[in-house]
Amino acid sequence: MNKDQLIGQIKSKKSFLCVGLDPVIENIPPHLLKYDNPILEFNKQIIDATHDLCVAYKPNTAFYECLGVQGWSTLTETWKYFPKEIFSIADAKRGDIGNTSNMYAEAFFNTEKSGMSFDSITVAPYMGEDSVVPFLQHKDKWVILLALTSNIGHKDFQLKETATEKLYESVIRTSSNWANSGQLMYVVGATRATEFQNIRKLAPNSFFLVPGVGAQGGSLDEVCEHGLNADCGLLINSSRGIIYASKGTDFAERAREEALKLQQQMESWLIKAKIIV
Amino acid sequence: MNKDQLIGQIKSKKSFLCVGLDPVIENIPPHLLKYDNPILEFNKQIIDATHDLCVAYKPNTAFYECLGVQGWSTLTETWKYFPKEIFSIADAKRGDIGNTSNMYAEAFFNTEKSGMSFDSITVAPYMGEDSVVPFLQHKDKWVILLALTSNIGHKDFQLKETATEKLYESVIRTSSNWANSGQLMYVVGATRATEFQNIRKLAPNSFFLVPGVGAQGGSLDEVCEHGLNADCGLLINSSRGIIYASKGTDFAERAREEALKLQQQMESWLIKAKIIV
Repeated sequence: MNKDQLIGQIKSKKSFLCVGLDPVIENIPPHLLKYDNPILEFNKQIIDATHDLCVAYKPNTAFYECLGVQGWSTLTETWKYFPKEIFSIADAKRGDIGNTSNMYAEAFFNTEKSGMSFDSITVAPYMGEDSVVPFLQHKDKWVILLALTSNIGHKDFQLKETATEKLYESVIRTSSNWANSGQLMYVVGATRATEFQNIRKLAPNSFFLVPGVGAQGGSLDEVCEHGLNADCGLLINSSRGIIYASKGTDFAERAREEALKLQQQMESWLIKAKIIV
Repeated sequence: MNKDQLIGQIKSKKSFLCVGLDPVIENIPPHLLKYDNPILEFNKQIIDATHDLCVAYKPNTAFYECLGVQGWSTLTETWKYFPKEIFSIADAKRGDIGNTSNMYAEAFFNTEKSGMSFDSITVAPYMGEDSVVPFLQHKDKWVILLALTSNIGHKDFQLKETATEKLYESVIRTSSNWANSGQLMYVVGATRATEFQNIRKLAPNSFFLVPGVGAQGGSLDEVCEHGLNADCGLLINSSRGIIYASKGTDFAERAREEALKLQQQMESWLIKAKIIV
Protein backbone atom coordinates (compact mmCIF):
# COMPACT_ATOMS: atom_id res chain seq x y z
CA MET A 1 0.00 0.00 0.00
CA ASN A 2 1.39 3.42 -0.84
CA LYS A 3 1.15 6.58 1.23
CA ASP A 4 -1.70 8.11 -0.79
CA GLN A 5 -3.79 5.01 -0.33
CA LEU A 6 -3.13 5.03 3.39
CA ILE A 7 -4.07 8.70 3.70
CA GLY A 8 -7.17 8.08 1.57
CA GLN A 9 -8.28 5.36 3.94
CA ILE A 10 -7.72 7.59 6.98
CA LYS A 11 -9.88 10.30 5.42
CA SER A 12 -12.69 8.00 4.35
CA LYS A 13 -12.85 6.11 7.64
CA LYS A 14 -12.19 9.27 9.69
CA SER A 15 -9.85 7.23 11.80
CA PHE A 16 -6.19 6.55 12.28
CA LEU A 17 -6.75 3.67 14.63
CA CYS A 18 -4.56 0.58 14.53
CA VAL A 19 -5.87 -2.46 16.40
CA GLY A 20 -3.21 -4.67 17.95
CA LEU A 21 -4.09 -8.34 17.62
CA ASP A 22 -2.14 -9.86 20.50
CA PRO A 23 -4.37 -12.68 21.71
CA VAL A 24 -3.50 -14.84 24.70
CA ILE A 25 -5.53 -18.01 25.10
CA GLU A 26 -6.01 -17.37 28.84
CA ASN A 27 -7.64 -14.01 28.13
CA ILE A 28 -10.04 -14.82 25.36
CA PRO A 29 -13.71 -15.48 26.07
CA PRO A 30 -14.28 -19.05 27.29
CA HIS A 31 -17.16 -19.66 24.88
CA LEU A 32 -14.65 -19.54 22.00
CA LEU A 33 -12.71 -22.49 23.33
CA LYS A 34 -15.10 -24.87 21.57
CA TYR A 35 -13.70 -23.81 18.18
CA ASP A 36 -10.91 -25.78 16.50
CA ASN A 37 -8.75 -22.67 16.61
CA PRO A 38 -10.11 -20.35 19.31
CA ILE A 39 -7.51 -17.65 18.70
CA LEU A 40 -8.23 -17.46 14.99
CA GLU A 41 -11.95 -17.29 15.71
CA PHE A 42 -11.29 -14.53 18.25
CA ASN A 43 -9.27 -12.53 15.74
CA LYS A 44 -11.90 -12.97 13.03
CA GLN A 45 -14.70 -11.76 15.27
CA ILE A 46 -12.61 -8.77 16.41
CA ILE A 47 -11.88 -7.93 12.78
CA ASP A 48 -15.54 -8.29 11.78
CA ALA A 49 -16.53 -5.94 14.60
CA THR A 50 -13.91 -3.24 14.09
CA HIS A 51 -12.69 -3.09 10.48
CA ASP A 52 -14.78 -0.04 9.49
CA LEU A 53 -13.43 1.90 12.48
CA CYS A 54 -9.71 1.27 12.07
CA VAL A 55 -7.20 1.60 9.24
CA ALA A 56 -4.62 -0.92 10.39
CA TYR A 57 -4.24 -4.24 12.17
CA LYS A 58 -1.05 -5.09 13.94
CA PRO A 59 -0.50 -8.66 15.09
CA ASN A 60 2.59 -8.94 17.26
CA THR A 61 4.42 -12.06 16.10
CA ALA A 62 5.44 -13.07 19.66
CA PHE A 63 1.84 -13.96 20.50
CA TYR A 64 1.76 -16.44 17.63
CA GLU A 65 5.30 -17.82 17.82
CA CYS A 66 4.76 -18.83 21.42
CA LEU A 67 2.24 -21.38 20.13
CA GLY A 68 4.71 -22.98 17.76
CA VAL A 69 3.72 -24.24 14.31
CA GLN A 70 0.02 -23.87 15.10
CA GLY A 71 0.60 -20.26 16.11
CA TRP A 72 2.46 -19.46 12.92
CA SER A 73 -0.45 -20.95 10.99
CA THR A 74 -2.88 -18.77 12.97
CA LEU A 75 -0.82 -15.68 12.08
CA THR A 76 -1.02 -16.63 8.40
CA GLU A 77 -4.76 -17.26 8.55
CA THR A 78 -5.29 -13.98 10.41
CA TRP A 79 -3.37 -12.10 7.72
CA LYS A 80 -5.54 -13.76 5.05
CA TYR A 81 -8.67 -12.55 6.84
CA PHE A 82 -7.72 -8.86 6.76
CA PRO A 83 -10.03 -6.80 4.53
CA LYS A 84 -8.31 -5.63 1.32
CA GLU A 85 -8.15 -1.94 2.28
CA ILE A 86 -6.49 -2.52 5.67
CA PHE A 87 -2.86 -1.45 6.24
CA SER A 88 -1.33 -4.55 7.80
CA ILE A 89 1.60 -4.36 10.20
CA ALA A 90 3.73 -7.35 11.16
CA ASP A 91 4.92 -6.22 14.57
CA ALA A 92 7.97 -8.44 14.42
CA LYS A 93 10.85 -6.14 15.47
CA ARG A 94 13.24 -7.98 13.17
CA GLY A 95 16.60 -6.83 11.80
CA ASP A 96 19.75 -8.77 10.93
CA ILE A 97 22.71 -8.65 8.53
CA GLY A 98 21.64 -7.85 4.95
CA ASN A 99 21.58 -11.42 3.68
CA THR A 100 19.34 -12.42 6.58
CA SER A 101 17.08 -9.36 6.51
CA ASN A 102 16.39 -10.39 2.91
CA MET A 103 14.98 -13.64 4.27
CA TYR A 104 12.84 -11.79 6.81
CA ALA A 105 11.50 -9.64 3.98
CA GLU A 106 10.53 -12.84 2.15
CA ALA A 107 8.87 -14.10 5.31
CA PHE A 108 6.63 -11.08 5.73
CA PHE A 109 6.33 -9.57 2.23
CA ASN A 110 6.25 -12.53 -0.18
CA THR A 111 2.98 -14.48 -0.21
CA GLU A 112 4.25 -17.02 -2.69
CA LYS A 113 7.08 -18.06 -0.47
CA SER A 114 5.68 -17.67 3.02
CA GLY A 115 1.91 -17.42 2.61
CA MET A 116 1.82 -13.84 3.92
CA SER A 117 2.38 -10.38 2.55
CA PHE A 118 1.99 -7.64 5.11
CA ASP A 119 2.16 -3.98 4.09
CA SER A 120 4.78 -3.25 6.70
CA ILE A 121 7.06 -4.65 9.36
CA THR A 122 8.52 -3.16 12.52
CA VAL A 123 12.34 -3.26 12.51
CA ALA A 124 14.91 -2.67 15.27
CA PRO A 125 17.60 -0.20 14.17
CA TYR A 126 20.57 -1.46 16.18
CA MET A 127 22.26 -3.22 13.24
CA GLY A 128 22.06 -0.18 10.97
CA GLU A 129 21.45 0.51 7.31
CA ASP A 130 22.17 -2.85 5.68
CA SER A 131 19.80 -4.53 8.12
CA VAL A 132 16.93 -2.23 7.06
CA VAL A 133 17.39 -1.68 3.32
CA PRO A 134 16.43 -5.23 2.20
CA PHE A 135 12.88 -4.60 3.40
CA LEU A 136 12.71 -1.33 1.45
CA GLN A 137 13.54 -3.07 -1.80
CA HIS A 138 10.01 -4.43 -1.87
CA LYS A 139 7.76 -1.96 -3.72
CA ASP A 140 4.99 -0.34 -1.68
CA LYS A 141 6.16 -2.12 1.46
CA TRP A 142 7.09 -0.22 4.57
CA VAL A 143 9.61 -0.37 7.37
CA ILE A 144 8.41 0.93 10.72
CA LEU A 145 11.64 1.59 12.53
CA LEU A 146 11.83 1.59 16.32
CA ALA A 147 12.74 5.11 17.35
CA LEU A 148 11.43 5.95 20.82
CA THR A 149 9.54 3.02 22.29
CA SER A 150 6.81 3.04 24.92
CA ASN A 151 8.40 0.73 27.48
CA ILE A 152 10.46 1.72 30.50
CA GLY A 153 13.59 0.27 28.91
CA HIS A 154 13.61 3.11 26.36
CA LYS A 155 15.68 4.96 28.96
CA ASP A 156 18.57 2.52 28.78
CA PHE A 157 19.86 3.42 25.33
CA GLN A 158 17.37 5.42 23.30
CA LEU A 159 17.83 8.55 25.42
CA LYS A 160 21.61 8.18 25.49
CA GLU A 161 23.23 11.51 24.63
CA THR A 162 25.72 11.39 21.81
CA ALA A 163 27.93 14.34 20.89
CA THR A 164 25.05 16.11 19.17
CA GLU A 165 21.80 14.37 19.94
CA LYS A 166 20.02 11.51 21.66
CA LEU A 167 20.40 8.07 20.11
CA TYR A 168 16.78 7.89 18.96
CA GLU A 169 17.20 11.26 17.26
CA SER A 170 20.24 9.87 15.50
CA VAL A 171 18.17 6.85 14.43
CA ILE A 172 15.57 9.12 12.85
CA ARG A 173 18.07 11.48 11.25
CA THR A 174 20.37 8.77 9.88
CA SER A 175 17.59 6.51 8.60
CA SER A 176 15.99 9.40 6.73
CA ASN A 177 18.77 8.84 4.19
CA TRP A 178 17.65 5.25 3.62
CA ALA A 179 14.12 5.90 2.34
CA ASN A 180 11.58 8.70 2.24
CA SER A 181 8.32 9.02 4.12
CA GLY A 182 6.64 6.90 1.45
CA GLN A 183 8.26 3.77 2.80
CA LEU A 184 9.63 4.55 6.21
CA MET A 185 7.65 5.14 9.41
CA TYR A 186 8.80 5.29 13.02
CA VAL A 187 7.58 3.74 16.24
CA VAL A 188 7.13 6.54 18.74
CA GLY A 189 5.61 5.57 22.08
CA ALA A 190 2.63 7.53 23.41
CA THR A 191 4.21 7.41 26.83
CA ARG A 192 6.76 10.01 25.68
CA ALA A 193 4.19 12.56 24.45
CA THR A 194 6.35 15.47 25.60
CA GLU A 195 8.96 14.49 23.02
CA PHE A 196 6.45 14.50 20.17
CA GLN A 197 6.98 18.12 19.17
CA ASN A 198 10.67 17.53 18.80
CA ILE A 199 10.19 14.25 16.93
CA ARG A 200 7.68 15.82 14.55
CA LYS A 201 10.30 18.46 13.71
CA LEU A 202 12.85 15.75 12.94
CA ALA A 203 10.48 13.84 10.66
CA PRO A 204 7.83 16.33 9.52
CA ASN A 205 6.34 14.14 6.77
CA SER A 206 6.61 10.70 8.28
CA PHE A 207 3.92 8.52 9.74
CA PHE A 208 4.45 7.46 13.35
CA LEU A 209 3.09 4.19 14.67
CA VAL A 210 2.18 5.03 18.25
CA PRO A 211 1.81 2.26 20.83
CA GLY A 212 1.22 2.93 24.48
CA VAL A 213 -2.21 4.58 24.50
CA GLY A 214 -4.44 2.86 27.04
CA ALA A 215 -2.96 0.06 29.15
CA GLN A 216 0.51 1.65 29.06
CA GLY A 217 -0.80 5.09 30.12
CA GLY A 218 -0.29 7.31 27.07
CA SER A 219 -2.79 10.04 26.17
CA LEU A 220 -4.39 10.10 22.72
CA ASP A 221 -5.06 13.84 22.98
CA GLU A 222 -1.47 14.70 23.83
CA VAL A 223 -0.19 12.58 20.98
CA CYS A 224 -2.59 14.25 18.52
CA GLU A 225 -1.82 17.72 19.78
CA HIS A 226 1.90 17.36 19.13
CA GLY A 227 2.02 14.64 16.50
CA LEU A 228 -0.54 15.33 13.76
CA ASN A 229 0.73 16.68 10.45
CA ALA A 230 -1.11 17.72 7.27
CA ASP A 231 -1.49 14.07 6.17
CA CYS A 232 -2.49 12.97 9.67
CA GLY A 233 0.88 11.24 10.03
CA LEU A 234 -0.22 9.06 12.92
CA LEU A 235 -1.35 5.47 13.37
CA ILE A 236 -2.35 5.07 16.99
CA ASN A 237 -2.42 1.54 18.26
CA SER A 238 -4.65 0.05 20.91
CA SER A 239 -4.46 -3.63 21.72
CA ARG A 240 -5.64 -4.73 25.14
CA GLY A 241 -8.08 -1.82 25.57
CA ILE A 242 -10.05 -3.04 22.57
CA ILE A 243 -9.59 -6.78 22.27
CA TYR A 244 -10.09 -7.48 25.96
CA ALA A 245 -12.95 -5.04 26.57
CA SER A 246 -15.03 -8.01 27.69
CA LYS A 247 -14.44 -11.70 28.35
CA GLY A 248 -18.12 -12.50 27.76
CA THR A 249 -20.07 -13.47 24.66
CA ASP A 250 -20.37 -9.73 24.00
CA PHE A 251 -16.58 -9.32 23.55
CA ALA A 252 -16.81 -8.32 19.88
CA GLU A 253 -19.57 -5.78 20.50
CA ARG A 254 -17.64 -4.33 23.41
CA ALA A 255 -14.45 -4.24 21.32
CA ARG A 256 -16.42 -2.29 18.71
CA GLU A 257 -17.61 0.18 21.36
CA GLU A 258 -14.04 0.82 22.52
CA ALA A 259 -12.83 1.19 18.94
CA LEU A 260 -15.72 3.56 18.23
CA LYS A 261 -14.77 5.79 21.17
CA LEU A 262 -11.23 6.09 19.83
CA GLN A 263 -12.44 6.61 16.24
CA GLN A 264 -14.72 9.44 17.38
CA GLN A 265 -11.89 11.13 19.28
CA MET A 266 -9.72 10.76 16.18
CA GLU A 267 -12.45 12.16 13.91
CA SER A 268 -12.61 15.28 16.09
CA TRP A 269 -8.88 15.71 15.80
CA LEU A 270 -8.93 15.21 12.01
CA ILE A 271 -11.61 17.93 11.73
CA LYS A 272 -9.77 20.23 14.12
CA ALA A 273 -6.58 19.81 12.07
CA LYS A 274 -8.59 20.45 8.87
CA ILE A 275 -7.54 17.09 7.40
CA ILE A 276 -11.19 16.27 6.83
CA VAL A 277 -14.23 18.54 6.86
CA MET B 1 22.47 -25.59 30.01
CA ASN B 2 24.60 -23.85 32.61
CA LYS B 3 28.03 -22.33 32.16
CA ASP B 4 29.93 -25.25 33.69
CA GLN B 5 28.24 -27.69 31.34
CA LEU B 6 29.09 -25.50 28.37
CA ILE B 7 32.73 -25.23 29.41
CA GLY B 8 32.83 -28.98 30.05
CA GLN B 9 31.64 -29.64 26.52
CA ILE B 10 34.25 -27.25 25.06
CA LYS B 11 37.00 -29.07 26.93
CA SER B 12 35.87 -32.56 26.01
CA LYS B 13 35.27 -31.78 22.34
CA LYS B 14 38.33 -29.49 22.16
CA SER B 15 36.25 -27.11 20.17
CA PHE B 16 34.27 -23.90 20.55
CA LEU B 17 32.73 -24.13 17.13
CA CYS B 18 29.13 -23.12 16.52
CA VAL B 19 27.60 -24.22 13.23
CA GLY B 20 25.05 -21.85 11.75
CA LEU B 21 22.14 -23.72 10.18
CA ASP B 22 20.89 -21.19 7.64
CA PRO B 23 19.75 -23.33 4.71
CA VAL B 24 18.39 -21.85 1.50
CA ILE B 25 16.61 -24.25 -0.82
CA GLU B 26 18.46 -22.89 -3.88
CA ASN B 27 21.84 -23.72 -2.29
CA ILE B 28 21.30 -27.21 -0.98
CA PRO B 29 22.44 -30.24 -2.96
CA PRO B 30 19.96 -31.14 -5.71
CA HIS B 31 19.90 -34.81 -4.77
CA LEU B 32 18.12 -33.86 -1.52
CA LEU B 33 15.17 -32.39 -3.35
CA LYS B 34 13.59 -35.83 -3.59
CA TYR B 35 12.93 -35.83 0.17
CA ASP B 36 9.58 -34.66 1.59
CA ASN B 37 11.40 -31.93 3.46
CA PRO B 38 14.77 -31.33 1.78
CA ILE B 39 15.84 -28.64 4.23
CA LEU B 40 15.20 -30.82 7.24
CA GLU B 41 17.09 -33.68 5.61
CA PHE B 42 19.96 -31.28 4.82
CA ASN B 43 20.10 -30.10 8.44
CA LYS B 44 20.00 -33.65 9.78
CA GLN B 45 22.87 -34.78 7.58
CA ILE B 46 24.93 -31.70 8.50
CA ILE B 47 24.28 -32.42 12.18
CA ASP B 48 25.18 -36.11 11.80
CA ALA B 49 28.44 -35.12 10.12
CA THR B 50 29.56 -32.36 12.51
CA HIS B 51 28.11 -32.83 16.01
CA ASP B 52 31.29 -34.26 17.55
CA LEU B 53 33.32 -31.30 16.23
CA CYS B 54 31.11 -28.43 17.41
CA VAL B 55 29.53 -27.41 20.71
CA ALA B 56 26.64 -25.34 19.40
CA TYR B 57 24.14 -25.13 16.55
CA LYS B 58 22.61 -21.82 15.62
CA PRO B 59 19.65 -21.79 13.24
CA ASN B 60 18.79 -18.26 12.18
CA THR B 61 15.00 -18.01 12.35
CA ALA B 62 14.77 -15.86 9.19
CA PHE B 63 15.72 -18.82 7.03
CA TYR B 64 12.77 -20.80 8.39
CA GLU B 65 10.18 -18.02 8.67
CA CYS B 66 10.60 -17.19 4.99
CA LEU B 67 9.05 -20.60 4.26
CA GLY B 68 5.95 -19.91 6.31
CA VAL B 69 4.25 -22.59 8.41
CA GLN B 70 6.33 -25.34 6.81
CA GLY B 71 9.50 -23.45 7.68
CA TRP B 72 8.49 -23.03 11.30
CA SER B 73 7.82 -26.75 11.43
CA THR B 74 11.29 -27.43 9.98
CA LEU B 75 12.84 -25.22 12.67
CA THR B 76 11.03 -27.22 15.35
CA GLU B 77 12.06 -30.57 13.85
CA THR B 78 15.65 -29.35 13.53
CA TRP B 79 15.70 -28.37 17.20
CA LYS B 80 14.36 -31.83 18.11
CA TYR B 81 17.21 -33.43 16.20
CA PHE B 82 19.99 -31.68 18.15
CA PRO B 83 22.06 -34.08 20.27
CA LYS B 84 21.43 -33.68 24.01
CA GLU B 85 24.82 -32.17 24.82
CA ILE B 86 24.64 -29.40 22.17
CA PHE B 87 24.23 -25.76 23.22
CA SER B 88 21.40 -24.58 20.99
CA ILE B 89 21.07 -20.96 19.89
CA ALA B 90 17.90 -19.51 18.41
CA ASP B 91 19.39 -16.71 16.34
CA ALA B 92 16.19 -14.72 16.39
CA LYS B 93 17.29 -11.19 17.36
CA ARG B 94 14.05 -10.60 19.22
CA GLY B 95 13.26 -7.98 21.88
CA ASP B 96 10.02 -6.16 22.70
CA ILE B 97 8.19 -4.62 25.67
CA GLY B 98 8.27 -6.86 28.75
CA ASN B 99 4.84 -8.41 28.27
CA THR B 100 5.76 -9.35 24.71
CA SER B 101 9.30 -10.53 25.42
CA ASN B 102 7.64 -12.93 27.84
CA MET B 103 5.82 -14.43 24.87
CA TYR B 104 9.03 -14.69 22.87
CA ALA B 105 10.60 -16.50 25.82
CA GLU B 106 7.71 -18.97 25.72
CA ALA B 107 8.23 -19.37 21.98
CA PHE B 108 11.89 -20.32 22.28
CA PHE B 109 12.26 -21.68 25.82
CA ASN B 110 9.05 -23.58 26.56
CA THR B 111 8.70 -26.93 24.79
CA GLU B 112 5.25 -27.56 26.21
CA LYS B 113 3.84 -24.44 24.67
CA SER B 114 5.79 -24.04 21.46
CA GLY B 115 7.42 -27.41 20.81
CA MET B 116 10.94 -25.98 21.22
CA SER B 117 13.30 -25.18 24.05
CA PHE B 118 16.58 -23.69 22.92
CA ASP B 119 19.36 -23.01 25.43
CA SER B 120 19.70 -19.43 24.29
CA ILE B 121 18.32 -16.69 22.09
CA THR B 122 19.95 -13.67 20.47
CA VAL B 123 18.29 -10.42 21.57
CA ALA B 124 18.55 -6.86 20.22
CA PRO B 125 19.26 -4.35 23.01
CA TYR B 126 17.54 -1.25 21.62
CA MET B 127 14.46 -1.54 23.86
CA GLY B 128 16.50 -1.89 27.05
CA GLU B 129 16.26 -3.82 30.28
CA ASP B 130 12.58 -4.78 30.43
CA SER B 131 12.84 -6.22 26.93
CA VAL B 132 15.68 -8.53 27.99
CA VAL B 133 14.86 -9.60 31.54
CA PRO B 134 11.87 -11.85 30.70
CA PHE B 135 14.22 -14.24 28.91
CA LEU B 136 16.53 -14.35 31.93
CA GLN B 137 13.73 -15.51 34.18
CA HIS B 138 13.99 -18.95 32.61
CA LYS B 139 16.50 -21.01 34.60
CA ASP B 140 19.65 -22.09 32.76
CA LYS B 141 18.55 -20.21 29.65
CA TRP B 142 20.73 -17.56 28.10
CA VAL B 143 20.39 -14.22 26.40
CA ILE B 144 23.00 -13.46 23.76
CA LEU B 145 22.78 -9.72 23.43
CA LEU B 146 23.82 -7.92 20.26
CA ALA B 147 26.80 -5.77 21.17
CA LEU B 148 29.07 -5.18 18.18
CA THR B 149 27.75 -6.96 15.11
CA SER B 150 29.67 -8.16 12.07
CA ASN B 151 27.78 -6.30 9.35
CA ILE B 152 28.69 -2.95 7.82
CA GLY B 153 25.67 -1.32 9.47
CA HIS B 154 27.36 -1.66 12.88
CA LYS B 155 28.88 1.74 12.05
CA ASP B 156 25.54 3.51 11.99
CA PHE B 157 24.76 3.37 15.70
CA GLN B 158 26.92 0.88 17.58
CA LEU B 159 30.05 3.02 17.26
CA LYS B 160 28.18 6.20 18.14
CA GLU B 161 30.13 8.09 20.78
CA THR B 162 28.19 8.99 23.90
CA ALA B 163 29.54 11.28 26.60
CA THR B 164 31.74 8.53 28.00
CA GLU B 165 31.80 5.60 25.61
CA LYS B 166 30.57 4.06 22.39
CA LEU B 167 27.00 2.80 22.32
CA TYR B 168 28.00 -0.87 22.18
CA GLU B 169 30.22 -0.34 25.22
CA SER B 170 27.26 1.15 27.00
CA VAL B 171 25.18 -1.89 26.00
CA ILE B 172 27.74 -4.21 27.57
CA ARG B 173 28.27 -2.11 30.69
CA THR B 174 24.58 -1.45 31.35
CA SER B 175 23.41 -5.00 30.66
CA SER B 176 26.00 -6.42 33.03
CA ASN B 177 23.62 -5.27 35.77
CA TRP B 178 20.82 -7.43 34.39
CA ALA B 179 22.47 -10.83 34.71
CA ASN B 180 25.89 -12.35 35.27
CA SER B 181 28.06 -14.26 32.85
CA GLY B 182 26.14 -17.43 33.72
CA GLN B 183 23.17 -16.28 31.68
CA LEU B 184 24.29 -13.41 29.50
CA MET B 185 26.55 -13.58 26.46
CA TYR B 186 27.27 -10.98 23.78
CA VAL B 187 27.37 -11.07 20.02
CA VAL B 188 30.73 -9.64 18.95
CA GLY B 189 31.50 -9.77 15.24
CA ALA B 190 34.81 -11.26 14.09
CA THR B 191 35.07 -8.44 11.58
CA ARG B 192 35.92 -6.08 14.45
CA ALA B 193 38.80 -8.13 15.84
CA THR B 194 40.76 -5.01 16.75
CA GLU B 195 38.08 -4.13 19.29
CA PHE B 196 38.27 -7.52 20.98
CA GLN B 197 40.88 -6.53 23.55
CA ASN B 198 38.76 -3.65 24.69
CA ILE B 199 35.58 -5.75 24.73
CA ARG B 200 37.26 -8.52 26.71
CA LYS B 201 38.20 -5.93 29.34
CA LEU B 202 34.60 -4.77 29.55
CA ALA B 203 33.26 -8.29 30.00
CA PRO B 204 36.14 -10.43 31.24
CA ASN B 205 34.06 -13.46 32.22
CA SER B 206 31.43 -13.50 29.52
CA PHE B 207 31.09 -15.76 26.56
CA PHE B 208 31.02 -14.04 23.17
CA LEU B 209 29.15 -15.50 20.21
CA VAL B 210 31.31 -14.52 17.26
CA PRO B 211 29.84 -14.45 13.76
CA GLY B 212 31.74 -13.21 10.74
CA VAL B 213 34.57 -15.73 10.45
CA GLY B 214 34.77 -17.01 6.88
CA ALA B 215 32.35 -15.56 4.31
CA GLN B 216 32.29 -12.20 6.10
CA GLY B 217 36.09 -11.98 6.28
CA GLY B 218 36.89 -12.23 10.01
CA SER B 219 40.00 -14.08 11.23
CA LEU B 220 39.71 -16.92 13.73
CA ASP B 221 43.27 -16.39 14.92
CA GLU B 222 42.79 -12.70 15.64
CA VAL B 223 39.59 -13.40 17.52
CA CYS B 224 41.29 -16.09 19.62
CA GLU B 225 44.34 -13.97 20.30
CA HIS B 226 42.31 -11.13 21.77
CA GLY B 227 39.14 -12.88 22.86
CA LEU B 228 39.99 -16.09 24.75
CA ASN B 229 39.65 -16.07 28.53
CA ALA B 230 40.35 -18.76 31.14
CA ASP B 231 37.04 -20.51 30.39
CA CYS B 232 37.55 -20.16 26.64
CA GLY B 233 34.76 -17.55 26.57
CA LEU B 234 34.20 -17.84 22.83
CA LEU B 235 31.71 -19.55 20.58
CA ILE B 236 32.83 -18.96 17.02
CA ASN B 237 30.18 -19.41 14.38
CA SER B 238 30.60 -20.57 10.83
CA SER B 239 27.59 -21.04 8.59
CA ARG B 240 28.13 -20.86 4.85
CA GLY B 241 31.78 -22.01 5.02
CA ILE B 242 30.63 -25.32 6.48
CA ILE B 243 27.13 -26.03 5.26
CA TYR B 244 27.84 -25.06 1.64
CA ALA B 245 31.30 -26.62 1.36
CA SER B 246 29.92 -28.72 -1.50
CA LYS B 247 26.70 -28.89 -3.47
CA GLY B 248 27.31 -32.52 -4.41
CA THR B 249 26.37 -35.80 -2.76
CA ASP B 250 29.52 -35.38 -0.66
CA PHE B 251 28.20 -32.19 1.02
CA ALA B 252 28.06 -33.72 4.52
CA GLU B 253 31.58 -35.16 4.27
CA ARG B 254 32.89 -31.85 2.98
CA ALA B 255 31.06 -29.99 5.74
CA ARG B 256 32.78 -32.27 8.24
CA GLU B 257 36.17 -31.53 6.69
CA GLU B 258 35.60 -27.80 7.02
CA ALA B 259 34.35 -28.19 10.60
CA LEU B 260 37.37 -30.34 11.38
CA LYS B 261 39.79 -27.68 10.12
CA LEU B 262 38.20 -25.13 12.42
CA GLN B 263 38.08 -27.58 15.34
CA GLN B 264 41.79 -28.30 14.94
CA GLN B 265 42.65 -24.59 14.89
CA MET B 266 40.52 -24.18 18.01
CA GLU B 267 42.17 -27.13 19.74
CA SER B 268 45.57 -25.51 19.19
CA TRP B 269 44.32 -22.32 20.72
CA LEU B 270 42.80 -24.12 23.72
CA ILE B 271 46.14 -25.83 24.35
CA LYS B 272 48.11 -22.61 23.85
CA ALA B 273 45.81 -20.86 26.35
CA LYS B 274 46.22 -23.80 28.78
CA ILE B 275 42.46 -24.41 28.87
CA ILE B 276 43.09 -28.03 27.92
CA VAL B 277 46.28 -30.06 28.00
